[in-house]
Amino acid sequence: MAEKKLDVAVLGATGSVGQRYVELLEHHPTLQLAEVFGSERSAGRSYGEACDWRVSAAPPEDPARMTVKHPEQPVESPVVFCSLPGGIARETELKLASDGHYVFSNAKDNRMADNVPLIIPEVNWQHAAAIERQQKELGFKDGFVVTNPNCSTIHLVLALKPIWDAFGIERCFATTLQATSGAGYPGVPSLDLIDNVVPYIGGEEEKIEEETLKLLGDFDGERFNFAKLGVSAQCNRVPVRHGHLETANLELRSKASPAEVIDVLRNFRSRPQELGLPSAPPQPVIVMDQPDRPQPALDRDVANGMASIVGRVRECNLLDIRMVVLGHNTIRGAAGASILNAEMLMADGYMSA
Amino acid sequence: MAEKKLDVAVLGATGSVGQRYVELLEHHPTLQLAEVFGSERSAGRSYGEACDWRVSAAPPEDPARMTVKHPEQPVESPVVFCSLPGGIARETELKLASDGHYVFSNAKDNRMADNVPLIIPEVNWQHAAAIERQQKELGFKDGFVVTNPNCSTIHLVLALKPIWDAFGIERCFATTLQATSGAGYPGVPSLDLIDNVVPYIGGEEEKIEEETLKLLGDFDGERFNFAKLGVSAQCNRVPVRHGHLETANLELRSKASPAEVIDVLRNFRSRPQELGLPSAPPQPVIVMDQPDRPQPALDRDVANGMASIVGRVRECNLLDIRMVVLGHNTIRGAAGASILNAEMLMADGYMSA
Amino acid sequence: MAEKKLDVAVLGATGSVGQRYVELLEHHPTLQLAEVFGSERSAGRSYGEACDWRVSAAPPEDPARMTVKHPEQPVESPVVFCSLPGGIARETELKLASDGHYVFSNAKDNRMADNVPLIIPEVNWQHAAAIERQQKELGFKDGFVVTNPNCSTIHLVLALKPIWDAFGIERCFATTLQATSGAGYPGVPSLDLIDNVVPYIGGEEEKIEEETLKLLGDFDGERFNFAKLGVSAQCNRVPVRHGHLETANLELRSKASPAEVIDVLRNFRSRPQELGLPSAPPQPVIVMDQPDRPQPALDRDVANGMASIVGRVRECNLLDIRMVVLGHNTIRGAAGASILNAEMLMADGYMSA
Amino acid sequence: MAEKKLDVAVLGATGSVGQRYVELLEHHPTLQLAEVFGSERSAGRSYGEACDWRVSAAPPEDPARMTVKHPEQPVESPVVFCSLPGGIARETELKLASDGHYVFSNAKDNRMADNVPLIIPEVNWQHAAAIERQQKELGFKDGFVVTNPNCSTIHLVLALKPIWDAFGIERCFATTLQATSGAGYPGVPSLDLIDNVVPYIGGEEEKIEEETLKLLGDFDGERFNFAKLGVSAQCNRVPVRHGHLETANLELRSKASPAEVIDVLRNFRSRPQELGLPSAPPQPVIVMDQPDRPQPALDRDVANGMASIVGRVRECNLLDIRMVVLGHNTIRGAAGASILNAEMLMADGYMSA
Repeated sequence: MAEKKLDVAVLGATGSVGQRYVELLEHHPTLQLAEVFGSERSAGRSYGEACDWRVSAAPPEDPARMTVKHPEQPVESPVVFCSLPGGIARETELKLASDGHYVFSNAKDNRMADNVPLIIPEVNWQHAAAIERQQKELGFKDGFVVTNPNCSTIHLVLALKPIWDAFGIERCFATTLQATSGAGYPGVPSLDLIDNVVPYIGGEEEKIEEETLKLLGDFDGERFNFAKLGVSAQCNRVPVRHGHLETANLELRSKASPAEVIDVLRNFRSRPQELGLPSAPPQPVIVMDQPDRPQPALDRDVANGMASIVGRVRECNLLDIRMVVLGHNTIRGAAGASILNAEMLMADGYMSA
Repeated sequence: MAEKKLDVAVLGATGSVGQRYVELLEHHPTLQLAEVFGSERSAGRSYGEACDWRVSAAPPEDPARMTVKHPEQPVESPVVFCSLPGGIARETELKLASDGHYVFSNAKDNRMADNVPLIIPEVNWQHAAAIERQQKELGFKDGFVVTNPNCSTIHLVLALKPIWDAFGIERCFATTLQATSGAGYPGVPSLDLIDNVVPYIGGEEEKIEEETLKLLGDFDGERFNFAKLGVSAQCNRVPVRHGHLETANLELRSKASPAEVIDVLRNFRSRPQELGLPSAPPQPVIVMDQPDRPQPALDRDVANGMASIVGRVRECNLLDIRMVVLGHNTIRGAAGASILNAEMLMADGYMSA
Repeated sequence: MAEKKLDVAVLGATGSVGQRYVELLEHHPTLQLAEVFGSERSAGRSYGEACDWRVSAAPPEDPARMTVKHPEQPVESPVVFCSLPGGIARETELKLASDGHYVFSNAKDNRMADNVPLIIPEVNWQHAAAIERQQKELGFKDGFVVTNPNCSTIHLVLALKPIWDAFGIERCFATTLQATSGAGYPGVPSLDLIDNVVPYIGGEEEKIEEETLKLLGDFDGERFNFAKLGVSAQCNRVPVRHGHLETANLELRSKASPAEVIDVLRNFRSRPQELGLPSAPPQPVIVMDQPDRPQPALDRDVANGMASIVGRVRECNLLDIRMVVLGHNTIRGAAGASILNAEMLMADGYMSA
Repeated sequence: MAEKKLDVAVLGATGSVGQRYVELLEHHPTLQLAEVFGSERSAGRSYGEACDWRVSAAPPEDPARMTVKHPEQPVESPVVFCSLPGGIARETELKLASDGHYVFSNAKDNRMADNVPLIIPEVNWQHAAAIERQQKELGFKDGFVVTNPNCSTIHLVLALKPIWDAFGIERCFATTLQATSGAGYPGVPSLDLIDNVVPYIGGEEEKIEEETLKLLGDFDGERFNFAKLGVSAQCNRVPVRHGHLETANLELRSKASPAEVIDVLRNFRSRPQELGLPSAPPQPVIVMDQPDRPQPALDRDVANGMASIVGRVRECNLLDIRMVVLGHNTIRGAAGASILNAEMLMADGYMSA
């Protein structure tokens, strides 16, 4: 199959999410890491030396030997995974798409744009149809920009989607307990997370509240119609390496018992599972029965970090359902999300080799 | 003043909350620690040796030299602070009251009983009037049982009370991030709280949901009328030594802006402040302005751990108000709560020297 | 190969080390988990329900369905892995060996006995010859007891062995920073390890100081001759889930530069590598060059947790060499150690199928 | 007494150690905080806003309202406490002394200089006599530079000094477990200290090994003569907020039993105690008897963080004595050390009001 692999460039490759891209692409069957881009400071050095690798003991050998490219060097690979910081990602991504690249972005800048699909393959794969409009509107020939949501949004929405489809959701109250790797490296100082939690993550609550509406909405061929539900989020940083945990209280449109909710969660399958995409988890949502689960240290790596783990599904004494959601924030919550988007668009013919 | 001090016995004195009683009573102006009771295993040993003191470097010298009494030895002191485990507290407390003792309990067993006041002095000091009914109904002469709420309830309700009075509250959604000292010692294994959070604390959610209604309700001379509001709680244990943090989403009866809410919180004073009780915080609720506060490591000891610290008071996009509450769980959340109850009842003439 | 597998019983199977045995045996090519034994409390329940599984999200499916046997039920499997608590292990192990079982023990009771080999396969595989003496002396027919060292001893001695062979060691000063899983579950309370370290682990220092001498010594056909070196240990518990880190200062018999020491460490191979044992790491000792490594969170799982990771090999300004050693405490430091012992004795013909 | 207070400027006031200076000076009887200097970025802002206060809930009110001065503004106060980063401290401190200021520095730059005293008042208060030589040699009129040691050195040497005096020390092997506040703020990333330890702190080992020799040496009127002992250090960062723990193995010149060592430690008093300096701990070294103490979370604040806490004094099987030392790294290990130096020199007439 090697001759069919598409070359991939990773932008922001030395960062926390960039490292996950590199790790997850190591043995990828259809994507081949070909270029790593870093900051000016990293450019010209070997990737192994330039990055403070923190996702395992050491970067894979081949990428470690690659020379980090300067942000202004031309990108040669057709596929681009982007984890640039918010602010500088917008223009870079649009320019690359304009140059014909297939851009999959984990950056926030373009997520909510009118002409950019924000996709979780199991949730709203149909939004990929907006690529056509994007290309027409922005004058792109083959290239495009597709984004994935914020790490805490992804896992919440993966767990909400089957419930949304089966029963409808009026309102969702979410409180997050988020891992420190979500803030990158160096990120949160250790003095802030030893014997402590920080009840604030800048911009995070707004992302959850807005992105969810786009994700659960539809694309009607012309525009994105946001879903009609309300989401309210309160975000906290806790002393955990990886794995965001979220509590949710749900008001449903049609009443449903916890058993019925568990049933739709467990039976949920979608397009990535049908297509058998390489990174797709067999079950996008896994429900645990034990009263004290999921827990980040024990459960974040289940299904290779690509599923959302749900627990404590029970009645809410004020609304309908309460539950807890856990997910790996830099795998399914970031790099793995982008890669699954790329796999799906490849399978659906949006990308030519 | 020494001649006016009332003698105090602490039941469950070697436990986590028991240690706080001993610490807080060290220089108390009107209460004098006279007896420490422990388990059969501890009985007969010096308090300093029998307990795994964990609230500071060492127990105060005088209590350290006391001999721990056996659970079946008679209690001699008029005042009893009880932090016995749930299950065995109920009968013990009632028996002691029957024998004429003034029992202040942090145990859960009697909190929701029809004839037992559950008191936070700033919130429902008027419930003390139920002591009379208790004594009549149960045939107590001078003794009584008064309880304080669960640690996570106290801080939530202290912060809700001024809002309840000013604007009314229809519904409250709370998610807690609770410290490990709330589970006692040895309590939660370290393997469960290194790089981890546990989304479950047995019985805790029910306590918050029920006790709040009794606390915000009234006592009409005959019975407790529960407040008409709904509370839904989701409880998590996090790797923090002391200090419970809680996020809350509030639906008010009369609309109020965050500024108005902050205003009533800051201006809140109640009977303990009027009486100038020794352990009363000057302000029961302290509001912080910084976007990322309160934090347990930095703020739990503010006002000697006797106030509730509120932050991030802002609009809720679905209801009315969102905010964060922090409080020291073993000081104002347990031992300090009992002691303040005792101080108030002493000031109000319920206890004779 | 299935027909050639030897059946295995795990004693103390619900404990922290017991769980590792179960995990590591899941796909083992020559050993087949057949029985799990637990405490009276666990006996009769399914293994999945009886144990607080803490080494991953869930126990493997087959063992999870096994019924936990009562400590007094007969052991049917020829091979026994024992992680019983110290104190009750001694007699149990000897009795099982007397009954013909091949007993591999992680318990401390028999480690230092005159007639029991204490083996790290790469270090002193020749001590297996003492089995013959054991069988003769204790009247065992085919059965035997072989032990592996304490978790912090194993990794220190793996790293010392190549240096011992090449240059001789006069004295070794070691200070450990040990993970909490080494204390089992529930083990160390979280209140003792949040924002804290505990400079004491009962009995641990003595184990390091004594076991090392037996391991680096020889068996002359009659008796174990202890190695002539001095070891002094100071042991600390730190807030880490898995992975013991140890600093060591070494006085050598023949001078050697750090580069020479690194060289012998990197070139070290021994009998398990020659035999190609299934659990043997390709390199028993891995040397890292970065100045701030190894670190538990990043490096404990290198080589599947079966190697010792050495870093910061440099001159000691008072003795000869300073270095840092890291190793996974419940894999190579416990269950994996026993399993590797079993693999070697199987390869060397000590066990008949 | 207010009229007798000396005005104080703090350089690097917004940093981790700078904050401790500000905190410790709040109610100081003889020193009055008058100026706070920060970086260019902080200059012109109020101190309360400019600094990420992390030592308690909030900075004292008066300093919080001070305007942070620019590094190039003139210093007006006679006394200067300096916690500038290494590299830029050297010239700044010498220039200030040349201008007549009494400079007390926690920076490393001048510590080992031939003409700069490095002082722990209890250990080598006699070194203050070198101020005269400094002034003559460098042409200072009244001003001077006096330094205090590195945080991990101070506590080790405080504990060594009574032993050194009573029995002599040939060699000391030390391994440290250091708190994160020692690295400042933001300092060590949380991703490096959750479920992890880092076996490396740049430059730290050298500081312990060198500074100890100067501290235990003498000043003969002309020059510093270094003490004749060997110190070897291995330094680790652990997930602790405050409090450095150190294990030490000591080779003594005259043999001494643990009981004798404990005796000299407990009886140790020195010039600060004789002078009754405001910040002097009644006992510079406190010995704990419990086998598992001292522990950072429990014991770092003993004696207001100004003493060194020693535990586990026992025989070393290879040398003479083993023990554990704990001390607060930013109080007695930094800001408090400087302040005590200033108090002593004020008492001894080196500073005119």
